[in-house]
Amino acid sequence: MKNFKLIIEYDGTCYHGWQRQKTEQTIQGEIEQALFTISGLKITLTGSGRTDSGVHALGQTANFKCDTHLGPDVFFKALNALLPDDIVIKSCEMVDENFHARFNAKSKTYRYWIYNHSIPKAVGRQYAWFIRHPLNYDAMNMAARLLSGTHDFKAFEASGSPRSGTERTVTKAEMIRSTNHYVCFEIEANGFLRFMVRNIVGTLAEIGLGKRTADEIKDILRSCDRSKAGVTAPAHGLFLIRVEY
Amino acid sequence: MKNFKLIIEYDGTCYHGWQRQKTEQTIQGEIEQALFTISGLKITLTGSGRTDSGVHALGQTANFKCDTHLGPDVFFKALNALLPDDIVIKSCEMVDENFHARFNAKSKTYRYWIYNHSIPKAVGRQYAWFIRHPLNYDAMNMAARLLSGTHDFKAFEASGSPRSGTERTVTKAEMIRSTNHYVCFEIEANGFLRFMVRNIVGTLAEIGLGKRTADEIKDILRSCDRSKAGVTAPAHGLFLIRVEY
Repeated sequence: MKNFKLIIEYDGTCYHGWQRQKTEQTIQGEIEQALFTISGLKITLTGSGRTDSGVHALGQTANFKCDTHLGPDVFFKALNALLPDDIVIKSCEMVDENFHARFNAKSKTYRYWIYNHSIPKAVGRQYAWFIRHPLNYDAMNMAARLLSGTHDFKAFEASGSPRSGTERTVTKAEMIRSTNHYVCFEIEANGFLRFMVRNIVGTLAEIGLGKRTADEIKDILRSCDRSKAGVTAPAHGLFLIRVEY
Repeated sequence: MKNFKLIIEYDGTCYHGWQRQKTEQTIQGEIEQALFTISGLKITLTGSGRTDSGVHALGQTANFKCDTHLGPDVFFKALNALLPDDIVIKSCEMVDENFHARFNAKSKTYRYWIYNHSIPKAVGRQYAWFIRHPLNYDAMNMAARLLSGTHDFKAFEASGSPRSGTERTVTKAEMIRSTNHYVCFEIEANGFLRFMVRNIVGTLAEIGLGKRTADEIKDILRSCDRSKAGVTAPAHGLFLIRVEY
């Protein structure tokens, strides 16, 4: 049994997230369908984790096992030939049969883009959250840095999530100021709860708008109470950048 | 009669170009419809020129005349509230009643983006022409610079175009190397023929791929023969950046 590792870029705009669904188009569903066309086999693709509806990825990682004579280069070319142009396989390699894209993931990095200007953008609007009022980047960055370290992130988890363990270790959390009114929040952690990045970004935005102080991040973390955190930032600003193993 | 000047950004992906059509969605059509909603008047919007189906703009310019008590700020806000999010009014100001967006245009600047990498992009694929094989940027830039000055650009005009005068003055033409495998062709001229930028870029790409030499640009210009130039580059890499008056 061969085991293949894929690195995948996708524009999530038209998809109902990563995870296969019966009736809706998903990234996993599209790739599994292409794998079936190539191999004639019903192959299950294991992603490093789900991404929600509308979220993008530059470096989602997945693996699949397959009893095949085909090599990784054949899968790489055939997948890119078959997949729609909003899903691109960036690499395909054969890996140890024990490699598991989810269980072996050591850390993931997300970036969230905000376009902060009084007038919205038409070009690229599908890749950033438009915020009209001026943001205080320094306050946001101060708050972002308070997320570093090991914390219970339950306050930033989607309410009603069934997960039991909500402690995660954040190894990097900062605001990166870009050109042309774009600003980006980057976070690296050993794992993420459902909506965690978007709930953090929604809270940071409220800090940037002066509705909260940077220090409130500490109280929110301590509270473990979703209602203490800010709004959920929209999906379309979020990118899964890379997964480390 | 008041005269208003608009600067407009749009993502041309979903439109059949600038010019109003009976059945298809166009930029001009969308804005005129919004102007009708705001003013109750059938207003004709005069663009600096047409852009073709699928072409984008960061700074298209247009004007419209209207017998109204409304000021430019009201039009600015109401247009942006009514227009779909792939069309954005960047500014609206009152101008002299003689101002005409097409006749008074002194120069226009276009940019054409190419993504040059062995693997395509999913994110941002709607804003750049994907070319898989390595391009020789220096050769392309050398060729681009030969376009500067006053020339008959008939060889780069869409065949069958009815226009009589085909001489134009190019004040800037160069390749700009960007980050992350993007490269951009920028051209400024006192006017453009139909498909001129896309036919130039198609020719430059053939030079970059080594199928032609940079010097051939001179022969193509002299020939005034469309069949001597290269392919027409696809619409989706092209942006109208600004119009000078």
